[in-house]
Amino acid sequence: MGANEVTPEGPAGLSGQRAVRANNLATVLRTVRRLAPCSRAEVAAAAGLTKSTVSSLVAELIERRLLREGGTAAARKIGRPGLMLEIDEDSVAAVGLEVNVDYLTLVALDLTGRELFNRHVEFDARAAGPEASVSRMAELVTGALADPLLAGRGILGVGVAVPGLVDATTGTVRNAPNLGWRGVGLGASLSAAIASPEPRDIPVLVDNDATLAVLAECRDGHLAGALDLVYLTGEVGVGAGMLANGVALRGASGYGGEIGHVCLLPDGPRCACGRRGCLEALAGIEAILRRSAPDLVSDGPLSGATLARAVRVTVERASADEGDVREVLHRAGGWLGRGAAVLVNLLDPRAVILGGYFVPLGPWLVPAAETQLGEHAIVPAGEERRVHLSELGLSAAARGGAATLIQALDQGRLELPTGWPPASAAGGQ
Amino acid sequence: MGANEVTPEGPAGLSGQRAVRANNLATVLRTVRRLAPCSRAEVAAAAGLTKSTVSSLVAELIERRLLREGGTAAARKIGRPGLMLEIDEDSVAAVGLEVNVDYLTLVALDLTGRELFNRHVEFDARAAGPEASVSRMAELVTGALADPLLAGRGILGVGVAVPGLVDATTGTVRNAPNLGWRGVGLGASLSAAIASPEPRDIPVLVDNDATLAVLAECRDGHLAGALDLVYLTGEVGVGAGMLANGVALRGASGYGGEIGHVCLLPDGPRCACGRRGCLEALAGIEAILRRSAPDLVSDGPLSGATLARAVRVTVERASADEGDVREVLHRAGGWLGRGAAVLVNLLDPRAVILGGYFVPLGPWLVPAAETQLGEHAIVPAGEERRVHLSELGLSAAARGGAATLIQALDQGRLELPTGWPPASAAGGQ
Repeated sequence: MGANEVTPEGPAGLSGQRAVRANNLATVLRTVRRLAPCSRAEVAAAAGLTKSTVSSLVAELIERRLLREGGTAAARKIGRPGLMLEIDEDSVAAVGLEVNVDYLTLVALDLTGRELFNRHVEFDARAAGPEASVSRMAELVTGALADPLLAGRGILGVGVAVPGLVDATTGTVRNAPNLGWRGVGLGASLSAAIASPEPRDIPVLVDNDATLAVLAECRDGHLAGALDLVYLTGEVGVGAGMLANGVALRGASGYGGEIGHVCLLPDGPRCACGRRGCLEALAGIEAILRRSAPDLVSDGPLSGATLARAVRVTVERASADEGDVREVLHRAGGWLGRGAAVLVNLLDPRAVILGGYFVPLGPWLVPAAETQLGEHAIVPAGEERRVHLSELGLSAAARGGAATLIQALDQGRLELPTGWPPASAAGGQ
Repeated sequence: MGANEVTPEGPAGLSGQRAVRANNLATVLRTVRRLAPCSRAEVAAAAGLTKSTVSSLVAELIERRLLREGGTAAARKIGRPGLMLEIDEDSVAAVGLEVNVDYLTLVALDLTGRELFNRHVEFDARAAGPEASVSRMAELVTGALADPLLAGRGILGVGVAVPGLVDATTGTVRNAPNLGWRGVGLGASLSAAIASPEPRDIPVLVDNDATLAVLAECRDGHLAGALDLVYLTGEVGVGAGMLANGVALRGASGYGGEIGHVCLLPDGPRCACGRRGCLEALAGIEAILRRSAPDLVSDGPLSGATLARAVRVTVERASADEGDVREVLHRAGGWLGRGAAVLVNLLDPRAVILGGYFVPLGPWLVPAAETQLGEHAIVPAGEERRVHLSELGLSAAARGGAATLIQALDQGRLELPTGWPPASAAGGQ
């Protein structure tokens, strides 16, 4: 089965005519996103649907406030302005939330992917534990929903990014070693916490941070539009988000992307996973900081606050060329390049993106990474693969959490918020 | 964009209503494949199309001799037998052809995937060079087409498997180091050679051997139906065929799957690629044979005939526990397991399949491979990943070449053979 296949059952398990309708609504939504402002006739021609079908679908999408008429037709020569269609950017919002070792980031996007809201707070999820973390996350979400920037919008859902192995179907964090979480029903807990005291029915999706980050890079980063990308998270752990022809690779059980535990050096340094010579033990942020700022980093688990501070100090020391900090970063960069070469040799992406805390350390990591990538990767002649630094920084995974909800809507896999739009009954489907 | 998306342009660059028709024809074909024998009404219900649309599509597919009426309805309780639909297995055939270092394999499948024809010949493609190899391949194809087993069938095309980097769009072999081929326009040359002296218009597709082999395993091997699989070719080179959710991963430039040149041991043995410690240098068939049968394998490139013989001798020696042959295979198996672990950690497939010459050597390779895979792979608790031996053996890639043509037809991406069916004009589209 190829990437173009629509399964007979259609999206979201619908069957028969309902699936066709849901698919067609999504097709029209995507087509308008691509061509807007555009007329119904243009949509019909591009989507391969009849004009009368498109008119009926557009009416439903306008009623649901996903599309609206009256796009800025100034730049166009044809069609009456009043009949032009565009995405209704004032109606709904998608929320993305990342929990990581030392911070929470919340981002909200409108239906065009524009950022409406961004909040980054220091938070030690490992010390707090799952329960207190869920409370803090819910607080952040309900605070955002009450903010004037989001008030009055329909909320598509909350997409949560977690640094670990996630069962996206059930929203369960199976194992997030760097948070110390195992078997946490995050989706259900967070959904319940958000719905109290004010009852709310907001879907919560949970996914891996690297996977969501690479989806964000593909949509919004400076490599936006590239359909084959690899993203390395720069946190305590090193995970890979992998996009092949625009589709995220998660693996059969959601255990894909574990580049951090690929062995690059047999008999190398001991990794937190118990093995030796893993990429994470050679070039993860914690491994770097234990060498670049040993005075700040004590033995035992690295606390969130210490981590952020040690990164800042490492940047200062590298800038001032203190001690052997540049050499430490050069070596780590080299191992990152060798890890990237494994990904390039297997997946042949257009580019490799370093994210998270690799971004501030990038000036000292990237040169060695590109050298080693060049030596170890097999690529077409004249097409060297570059190592890029993410421009989405610590917001990438949260943006991806929000973007994945918009994408689900685009693909007919997501229902609209209950009671949306508020003024009239939602159109029958 | 997700796996379910149908691009607005539809298959094969068609636009608008034509694309919809082509998509719908393919949907009906796939639905009948899945449900056969089945009635038009069942197809309509399963595919989400109206009965009148399905009737029109079925009429065209019957006219084209892809479907027929009169399936064996004995096992079914409903419907009149005469109205049941099934795939017409007597009408067309798809040909697959693998060229490798020491052999050519040709396989032909009917539309249900049943093998009609299988021929394996020893052939030294490296010594012959591209031109003589194309002649020999064309001879094999035209010989098969004239065989009573295939005569009278419409030929969907020839899918050619090559151990190297292939531009599938143009049918060009960009670099097949173990054949010594670089920049060979194989698709065009073979197409021309097949069309002479008797004019024939048969599409030739060229793809990577590992990619085609994993597609065959997913369709026909003992793991058939598993949508996440990894296949390692056991030839002079070691390539990975990778399937994620049923979609083959080729990479942005078709350079994916180069597991053979992932470095597993810095400063390890020198590889033919010039690097050190590549999987291919540690556990490729040539690396194994130079240790297990040094008396048969001289310096310099390994000839095809020597390779096949040295594999047989190695099997004999391992069976008789001669010298250190079992230890050589045990060590190579361990490196294969570590290479497999890289694939499992990144892609999380359901299983890893060893193909080609790894199959006869399997009894001595697999135990060590599974031990190392278990030690180095991160998988869900209780879900150890196994190392399987291909049951398709040296036919896997050729079968995949044929299967990919059937798949293209199923997806509306392939035209029927010119002048097919011969008796009447093909239905207008």
